[in-house]
Amino acid sequence: MSDSNPKAAAIPLTRNPFHCKESRIPIEGAFTREEVQLALRQVEMPLEALRYDTTPVGLHYTLNHFDIPALEASCYRLTVSGRVRRPLSLAIDDLLRFPQVTQRVTLECAGNGRGLMTPRYPSMPWMYGAIGTAEWTGVRLRDVLAEAELLPDAVELSFYGADRGFDNGVEHPYGRSLKPELALSEDVLIAFAMNGAPLSAQHGWPLRLVVPGWYGMASVKWLVRIEAIDRPFDGYQQVVGYHYRNSADDPGVPVTSLRVKSLMVPPGIPDWYTGTRIVDRDAMLVSGRAWSGNGVPVVRVEVAVDEDWYEASVEPPSFRFAWQAWRFKWHPVPGEHELLCRATDASGATQPLAPHWNWNGMGNNACQRVRVFVR
Amino acid sequence: MSDSNPKAAAIPLTRNPFHCKESRIPIEGAFTREEVQLALRQVEMPLEALRYDTTPVGLHYTLNHFDIPALEASCYRLTVSGRVRRPLSLAIDDLLRFPQVTQRVTLECAGNGRGLMTPRYPSMPWMYGAIGTAEWTGVRLRDVLAEAELLPDAVELSFYGADRGFDNGVEHPYGRSLKPELALSEDVLIAFAMNGAPLSAQHGWPLRLVVPGWYGMASVKWLVRIEAIDRPFDGYQQVVGYHYRNSADDPGVPVTSLRVKSLMVPPGIPDWYTGTRIVDRDAMLVSGRAWSGNGVPVVRVEVAVDEDWYEASVEPPSFRFAWQAWRFKWHPVPGEHELLCRATDASGATQPLAPHWNWNGMGNNACQRVRVFVR
Repeated sequence: MSDSNPKAAAIPLTRNPFHCKESRIPIEGAFTREEVQLALRQVEMPLEALRYDTTPVGLHYTLNHFDIPALEASCYRLTVSGRVRRPLSLAIDDLLRFPQVTQRVTLECAGNGRGLMTPRYPSMPWMYGAIGTAEWTGVRLRDVLAEAELLPDAVELSFYGADRGFDNGVEHPYGRSLKPELALSEDVLIAFAMNGAPLSAQHGWPLRLVVPGWYGMASVKWLVRIEAIDRPFDGYQQVVGYHYRNSADDPGVPVTSLRVKSLMVPPGIPDWYTGTRIVDRDAMLVSGRAWSGNGVPVVRVEVAVDEDWYEASVEPPSFRFAWQAWRFKWHPVPGEHELLCRATDASGATQPLAPHWNWNGMGNNACQRVRVFVR
Repeated sequence: MSDSNPKAAAIPLTRNPFHCKESRIPIEGAFTREEVQLALRQVEMPLEALRYDTTPVGLHYTLNHFDIPALEASCYRLTVSGRVRRPLSLAIDDLLRFPQVTQRVTLECAGNGRGLMTPRYPSMPWMYGAIGTAEWTGVRLRDVLAEAELLPDAVELSFYGADRGFDNGVEHPYGRSLKPELALSEDVLIAFAMNGAPLSAQHGWPLRLVVPGWYGMASVKWLVRIEAIDRPFDGYQQVVGYHYRNSADDPGVPVTSLRVKSLMVPPGIPDWYTGTRIVDRDAMLVSGRAWSGNGVPVVRVEVAVDEDWYEASVEPPSFRFAWQAWRFKWHPVPGEHELLCRATDASGATQPLAPHWNWNGMGNNACQRVRVFVR
């Protein structure tokens, strides 16, 4: 952490047009009312839902910065403008005329695990469950951009949702950008369906971006405007939000693709208030899911019982951008134990035992820890 | 609050077979990690969803005490046993042969607003949104009980879910009971669909009880067993949980029907972290919903702007057990304001300005307060 007084330090990003000061600094210990309010508005996937190959819609995590907008199908238009030869204004039905594709994609919030960091940036206090996997159906972004014909000086594509609000004193619509290389890949979708049904309001009805392999902030919901621009995008959520920073005045590194990670279904049954798990001593399968970013497969999952590590069996990847199932046969011994799981991907990246701390609490892929009491 | 040391006080309910001590006492100020973990597993209806007459499934509140159980349609049976002439074991298809009815019902968690009480019982720290309204389709409980033929000595019906866990050191399946008068009314459903679709896992698939006019704890999810009994039900959630108590050693009064309440859609746009609302100064409609318990209609809603009260217009009830819409035309004046809303029902019951405090934080129907900044 910085030695300077972080309360007074502006983020001196040369690209930050807001010159806004960090109004919040990381804290320790008990949680604020504001953190709880955020936790009540968003939802974690309950970890027993790791049992589903694809997460049912009401169980998939949501992170919505602002209110869910009230949109009407008849008035809805997605515009494509800026550095394009043919600006577009597309009704929902216009979008549906492009070739349709379905992809199974695991999405995770970049702030997942923030609540497990110490000190902890005061924001959405995720523990483990800001995760979900769905079958997204949509059209390829590149097909829509091909119709609009990008001009040669388009260096970024910016994407705006219909949601709007304030953060750090700055009013803005939710907006993010992608470089043309990624935007023109075959993977990025403008999705209109999730698990075979129209998008629900909280997942971006009627249209949203889905950027496989990246943290969820890139997958802009309630997508109403795509603008091709001839300069780097300077929206708040691009240049202030979603950076790995070591201190308030560190320009930081943008958050992009998912870090390798695994989660387990907590075994046994819970205690309501503490979440402690109570397990019978019969041999049992401990199971979970593992994933990494950019379509890199997971090649290994290990499980630790009280610091002794064992190999779990991992299913080979069936979908480039979706989690893989893993399982481990455990012979519980009575007493209190801590279970951990750790994934390693094909690039050799593996999960740390403790979080890689950063100012805003981004990309925490430390091993999950589950306290169990075997009776 | 009691003068005795509540940490040491057992709940001396004569009907409490657990003799379990209250392991938690109300606290003030910042929130515990356990409270945040609970808030992440459950979900509030975001208040902008008051705009929908019926709440889309992923936005309806959930309060699940234990893990969502893994059930299979082919193995699933609902048994009806105990003080009945003809015990039943019903597959899902057997249930569907009874006459089907659909009812629009507003459900609210009994703990809604707990997080707004001071001191606050350490449990699920709801603020305002533990609410939702759905079209529930199912069969009448009384039709199923008629087929089983209650014996004359059946004084209660007990209902068990497939979910199981610990609370206060006591292992139990989630279970609740109803008196025959209510169980045999035409209003109580065994529901298999919500808003026209099969129940989602988190709302009780494949079958759940829906008890209109009561707080949500009565509407047992993942219903697997109904037992007619010749004595008062002594399940944990009936005799320890869900009571209005003044202290840890107060036997208390069971929580039953919904208290009169209203909520508003917070006007304007939010600040991400604080939730403060920023409003333009144009005249606008402030709108919301209001409801009461036991099918009693709401007859009046008032809105306060900085302690000056105004009449809102309230829609007459279209459904006995569902919320009613209300609206109020507001002419915002620049500056900071606090908005409140207050409902009164046909029995004359009205919302208090401050919570009626009780030990476990039940039934908080105090007026919603929304801080707005008009620019």
